[in-house]
Amino acid sequence: MMSEIQLKDPQEVLNALRSVKGVHGAAIIEKFGLVRDSALPGWIDADSIAAMVTLIQKASERATKELSQGQFLRAIIESEKGKLIFAEVVGKIVVIVATEDVKLGIVNLKLDAARDALKKL
Amino acid sequence: MMSEIQLKDPQEVLNALRSVKGVHGAAIIEKFGLVRDSALPGWIDADSIAAMVTLIQKASERATKELSQGQFLRAIIESEKGKLIFAEVVGKIVVIVATEDVKLGIVNLKLDAARDALKKL
Repeated sequence: MMSEIQLKDPQEVLNALRSVKGVHGAAIIEKFGLVRDSALPGWIDADSIAAMVTLIQKASERATKELSQGQFLRAIIESEKGKLIFAEVVGKIVVIVATEDVKLGIVNLKLDAARDALKKL
Repeated sequence: MMSEIQLKDPQEVLNALRSVKGVHGAAIIEKFGLVRDSALPGWIDADSIAAMVTLIQKASERATKELSQGQFLRAIIESEKGKLIFAEVVGKIVVIVATEDVKLGIVNLKLDAARDALKKL
């Protein structure tokens, strides 16, 4: 029996995330802030965003540890004209750059699919 | 005519936030990470959380600037067993430590009320 649509490589995972209405693009960041794969528009400097996201994620991990809140799952940074969303996915960080009115529910569903796909790679 | 319940000082603002179901406590942080007012339970070290939140907020501000997303509004850090929410409010940061199932809609309403109250102080 055929299975549902499968995401076969990281680039497909990112394209699936980018297909969500309001999402400008997405990237996968390795530990230490290295960009592994990126599907970001030209006006976004992936390396620069990766460095900042890694810094935020490290500080978030320390904060959640200090608060005994368990493992860091996800962060949402909201600003006037956009949202920056990133999640820990199989030891990497998936970061999503989106408009302020992006539907977080849909992004979360796609992130869950991304998690399942990246686990198998 | 009597107005609705007014929040008269920062401590009342924090108590109103703490009254939300799932909220462990809240604090107001000045620039540079100094705790101005705090209504946090004893097991949370306010100074330590303030330092981390300030670091995350600075990095978030740089990221949103880099992405031309306008002014930083709010960040939500989600972990397995809790949420850390903080917002820029009249030049200060209001940070809220909550359980993972806290209702963000209610927290946001209270944050709006906190913003209005802090503006008048």
